[in-house]
Amino acid sequence: MSEEKAGAYEGRVTWVEGLQFVAHGQVSGAAFVMDGDPNHGGLDSGVRPMEALLLSLAGCTGMDVISILRKKRQEVTGFWVNVRGFRAPEFPKWYTRIELEFVVRGWDISEQAVARSIELSQTKYCGVTASLKSEIVYTYRIEQEPVR
Amino acid sequence: MSEEKAGAYEGRVTWVEGLQFVAHGQVSGAAFVMDGDPNHGGLDSGVRPMEALLLSLAGCTGMDVISILRKKRQEVTGFWVNVRGFRAPEFPKWYTRIELEFVVRGWDISEQAVARSIELSQTKYCGVTASLKSEIVYTYRIEQEPVR
Repeated sequence: MSEEKAGAYEGRVTWVEGLQFVAHGQVSGAAFVMDGDPNHGGLDSGVRPMEALLLSLAGCTGMDVISILRKKRQEVTGFWVNVRGFRAPEFPKWYTRIELEFVVRGWDISEQAVARSIELSQTKYCGVTASLKSEIVYTYRIEQEPVR
Repeated sequence: MSEEKAGAYEGRVTWVEGLQFVAHGQVSGAAFVMDGDPNHGGLDSGVRPMEALLLSLAGCTGMDVISILRKKRQEVTGFWVNVRGFRAPEFPKWYTRIELEFVVRGWDISEQAVARSIELSQTKYCGVTASLKSEIVYTYRIEQEPVR
């Protein structure tokens, strides 16, 4: 059984200079750069950690939704998830509320399939959603391709 | 006032193929790739979303700690944060527990300064910590450089 299936994930962030860190995931072997605002000593060379949190949520639910839509034989030609997080005004400025907007483009996309895929992800499958305290709300939009 | 200071963060994940997504942060302008396990239709070309969540936590607290250590005039020559997340066995397999290990290398590093920096981040400053439901625990290790 792979570590991924066993359920534990590991990683490391390694400081480079200023607020620049390389973030490395042990299961995937992939890496990305995180960095801070130049006004606070950062080099502005990578995503902010609070952005990475939002993007992990959008990626997690996005992977669920595209997988389920495929199983439902939807002909998706484009798909993206916009995410916006609202922080409390005082430190630690946690995300009190996060808004997700799912946009599905394709041929004869079923609204019911889209709505159900998102619902399944948000209530049953997405481990990032389930790990957050924040209120998470979503909307979706379907862009049908012109008739063939 | 910049959007960063106003407290809202925005981003987008855009599906490319398989489970491959490009994740783009609107405040930083930076991007990285997320992808899934090849056994589940992924191309294995980027971090898993559940890894990105752990790494956002490690990066957030890592930036706090390196900033505070600098203010405390500690001569840090190396710094990294190891992170491990333990998931519930059933879907949505959320992180029930996350372990952080801070490793600080440097000249005459004060253990008190390290302990206090981590404590300040975890209790007061880190917005990712404060947004998570998971139990978060930490340890630290100091590696003193040899005497000059």
